[in-house]
Amino acid sequence: MAGIETINSRLISGIKGYFQEASREKAVLGLSGGIDSALVASLLAEALGKENVTALIMPLEGISNHENTRDAEEFAKQLGIKVIRLPINAFKSPLDKLPWVQAKVASANANARIRALLLYNYANSNNCLVVGTGNKTEMLLGYFTKFGDGAADLFVIGDLYKKEVRELSRKRGIPAKFVEKAPSADLWQGQTDEGELGLTYAEMDKILVAIENGSEAKLSENGISADKIALVNKRVAANRHKSLPTPLIKLH
Amino acid sequence: MAGIETINSRLISGIKGYFQEASREKAVLGLSGGIDSALVASLLAEALGKENVTALIMPLEGISNHENTRDAEEFAKQLGIKVIRLPINAFKSPLDKLPWVQAKVASANANARIRALLLYNYANSNNCLVVGTGNKTEMLLGYFTKFGDGAADLFVIGDLYKKEVRELSRKRGIPAKFVEKAPSADLWQGQTDEGELGLTYAEMDKILVAIENGSEAKLSENGISADKIALVNKRVAANRHKSLPTPLIKLH
Repeated sequence: MAGIETINSRLISGIKGYFQEASREKAVLGLSGGIDSALVASLLAEALGKENVTALIMPLEGISNHENTRDAEEFAKQLGIKVIRLPINAFKSPLDKLPWVQAKVASANANARIRALLLYNYANSNNCLVVGTGNKTEMLLGYFTKFGDGAADLFVIGDLYKKEVRELSRKRGIPAKFVEKAPSADLWQGQTDEGELGLTYAEMDKILVAIENGSEAKLSENGISADKIALVNKRVAANRHKSLPTPLIKLH
Repeated sequence: MAGIETINSRLISGIKGYFQEASREKAVLGLSGGIDSALVASLLAEALGKENVTALIMPLEGISNHENTRDAEEFAKQLGIKVIRLPINAFKSPLDKLPWVQAKVASANANARIRALLLYNYANSNNCLVVGTGNKTEMLLGYFTKFGDGAADLFVIGDLYKKEVRELSRKRGIPAKFVEKAPSADLWQGQTDEGELGLTYAEMDKILVAIENGSEAKLSENGISADKIALVNKRVAANRHKSLPTPLIKLH
């Protein structure tokens, strides 16, 4: 695994290269108050210049954690990037009148999809690329909403495990509260990723690295139960479709 | 090129196979009143059974062509599939209050993205897969909204050129008015695909087939101008990213 200095400089030059190739200068991202989007914002500000980065903060008021929204706003100001606060409630409330019974998962996914709609609306109106904030751990597990937070033009930290996200955040001086808070998709009150997934990120990372290296057999020596390994394998297989292009029925 | 009978039976078995593999029985699609979605609805009804297919008709009232909405409703009733009429205006109107100036393209794309949001809300609530209605001509040209009508779990006619869509529709007894009406994404009043793209579908298909077969040189013999060939090549290159998985900055 590359050292954190190397990772940092590869990401900065990777962002520069991608925008240059796409002939774009400006980026927009959603800033949640969590560590992933804080890190991506910080990388974008350095690579593109703070004047070329806009953060949308899109809480569902009444549900999203206030502290996260406040942390996000403070951090954007600290970076000096443009920040727009835009609650999603007005977009969410017409869903209460749908002519079908909305499942809990449908409602939670709608939050992520409304945010994607707004990011792309801003991007299409201001000649930006939408930058996604998913990390490798989430993406391998499929722990994101297809066409929601999964909708972006570029994933900047999509090849970093959560452990590396934390290391790089510390290195880049992201405030400690971002590194220390319990990761949450904030889809409903009190949700934590680890609670929902049933494993800690440390465990998920170890299992995913082992799957990648073909060294799963050694995991039990490290005290990780077969149940947890099976759980991760099942998630990876079930959600692989989320990271692939939509299939089509082939004829020619 | 396979005969139309063969194409028909491959699509039916392709749909059956895909749903079986995904362990799903039910599909939802957006029905616009155009030929593509009419054909896909007809194929799904045969492959999955009409009781397993739901069509959402999602006009933007005041903008979408009434005749299309009516044609869509009539055709869904004729097929015997479930149909839900759900205007998107309530979801669209909060965009009038965005804290930025909305570009025309952003507003048009928002229509497609709201429809995707609603299709996935229905799918997530009713254990369906979302079936996309894009054809090969549109997909190669990138003539669709990324994460809008481009958001689906399966593209049924994604390997059929527009010409084949028309042939197969005739063969399957889709009413002539669908085959004959001018194709339109219905993103604003009076829009036609051919007017916006600057070529007829017959020309686009010929050029795209030639690109695929490496026989572009012969196109000018068929009276297709170099300008039009260049236009298609430019579109294909510029929009290729829309059909690829979102790139990430690679480290490992």
